Amino acid sequence: MKLKFFITGGTICKRYNEISGALEFRDSFIPGMLERGRCKLDYSTEQLMLKDSLEMSDEDRETILASCLACKESKIIISHGTDTMVDTARVLGQQLENKTVVLFGAMIPYSISNSDAIFNLGCAVTAVQLLGAGVFVVMNGHIFRWDDVSKNRGEGVFQRADL
Amino acid sequence: MKLKFFITGGTICKRYNEISGALEFRDSFIPGMLERGRCKLDYSTEQLMLKDSLEMSDEDRETILASCLACKESKIIISHGTDTMVDTARVLGQQLENKTVVLFGAMIPYSISNSDAIFNLGCAVTAVQLLGAGVFVVMNGHIFRWDDVSKNRGEGVFQRADL
Amino acid sequence: MKLKFFITGGTICKRYNEISGALEFRDSFIPGMLERGRCKLDYSTEQLMLKDSLEMSDEDRETILASCLACKESKIIISHGTDTMVDTARVLGQQLENKTVVLFGAMIPYSISNSDAIFNLGCAVTAVQLLGAGVFVVMNGHIFRWDDVSKNRGEGVFQRADL
Amino acid sequence: MKLKFFITGGTICKRYNEISGALEFRDSFIPGMLERGRCKLDYSTEQLMLKDSLEMSDEDRETILASCLACKESKIIISHGTDTMVDTARVLGQQLENKTVVLFGAMIPYSISNSDAIFNLGCAVTAVQLLGAGVFVVMNGHIFRWDDVSKNRGEGVFQRADL
Repeated sequence: MKLKFFITGGTICKRYNEISGALEFRDSFIPGMLERGRCKLDYSTEQLMLKDSLEMSDEDRETILASCLACKESKIIISHGTDTMVDTARVLGQQLENKTVVLFGAMIPYSISNSDAIFNLGCAVTAVQLLGAGVFVVMNGHIFRWDDVSKNRGEGVFQRADL
Repeated sequence: MKLKFFITGGTICKRYNEISGALEFRDSFIPGMLERGRCKLDYSTEQLMLKDSLEMSDEDRETILASCLACKESKIIISHGTDTMVDTARVLGQQLENKTVVLFGAMIPYSISNSDAIFNLGCAVTAVQLLGAGVFVVMNGHIFRWDDVSKNRGEGVFQRADL
Repeated sequence: MKLKFFITGGTICKRYNEISGALEFRDSFIPGMLERGRCKLDYSTEQLMLKDSLEMSDEDRETILASCLACKESKIIISHGTDTMVDTARVLGQQLENKTVVLFGAMIPYSISNSDAIFNLGCAVTAVQLLGAGVFVVMNGHIFRWDDVSKNRGEGVFQRADL
Repeated sequence: MKLKFFITGGTICKRYNEISGALEFRDSFIPGMLERGRCKLDYSTEQLMLKDSLEMSDEDRETILASCLACKESKIIISHGTDTMVDTARVLGQQLENKTVVLFGAMIPYSISNSDAIFNLGCAVTAVQLLGAGVFVVMNGHIFRWDDVSKNRGEGVFQRADL
């Protein structure tokens, strides 16, 4: 079973720039995190973009959808910012069939102490193997279907859509 | 769905003692790791023992089995040393029905840089939710049934039993 | 020899807020960093403010000066943002006699991987013990007098004033 | 002012071997630690050996002494295990004149969380610049002359010899 990782940016991949004092993108942390997890599964990674998900456009989501449709793998993991993860999941969920897609990210960048990033990566890698076809958001140990998830921004957690 | 964590020790929970220079056990890291993962699932943790798995006796494995049988939860995660994880899985696998049990651990202690501990915890928390009844070893992104797993000690990886 | 630490904020003490996505102040890291350094010197810490040094006012600098003058210790270490560290050093240097004052900070917050914070703390603690009366900036292994230091913002380093 | 670092091993440079489960030596952490400290001083590093200091022989100490005598720099920093740091300091102190030598190490390996390694490196780099000729042990913020220092093994701290 071959896995495909699409990297799109998000908090999980932000780094501190010591000249500007801002959090920004340079290289993605995802490949290094998979090595740290000593994950020997058959996978490949591909960086589609490195964006804060608040800055993702409809066009960006079309790029992600097209990449999911075009790749030969049927098991896909997407690293994504949390703020619009649910929106991207909806675009994918309405148009993808016959593939298992898991979106995940982190509340705290991988480069910052006490980050949830690598925990969430472990969750995503496991979920994509065990779930059937469909689009899912996997965050902080919880598994949500794309049409039953929302982000509670006040508390910084994902929850069922109807909560 | 309520989850039960049984803590038994293993590399994952070892700490450096700066007086003796040895790696040893004090408190378990598992509860703190779950908080770091921002895991809001309904779970409880219980420490059965803190042992290097090379020092686990048949009696220890009986304690683990009895704890799995006695607890009210049907979804159980066991943190365990890697050296005899397969042996404990076999004891449980031969005698447990109707519960999902996931054993996991780490190749590098949580307290040491580049540890796989919290990645593996994410894998275990996710696997236990999605797998049906049975006993499983979940390590480094891989999911194994108790009767089809072995540890390759030379390479420090878990693999299918027949490899 | 008793040491006094005055905490004023700066990059060194910034933390990530996972709700807002911004770096901000909560508690200072300095007391925990001294414990991590296993520093058994006779010292006390006092938090004067927690500010980005770009937001420090003349009044803030007067507060720092007054605190240096008023305390009974003659060996003082001040944690401070790097952007106006040289300005505060000048205010102190022009008005303090008979005390050794060392200002330090970090280019990368203590909470972010690869931070220089605790290295710089070690430098400051050592410099204040060995230097005579005067006001100094101690950053990244370099020791500067208050009237011969500037921050090169393009490169993110401190250097002699005339470079 | 040019600084010379001699690397000899010690706890500070130990790494976890996930196959054997033991702490051991591979590459030294010292060059990477200096980069992390963003230290732009003019220095060079040279690895003399990588040994637990309990396994250092008289011959090893002669090698260290000969290296200190032979190098062109008069400011020397030696990373060293803590158990016999005082012994090596004595050998150097009795035979070196006109050079400043600072020995340092760590109680907790650099690769383990909460390590004092990089704090101590900052202390050593600063002390060697400010101290006059002589041989010193610089640990955890304290500065000791070679003939007035002992390690209190029960508490894991260095102290004045007569305490």
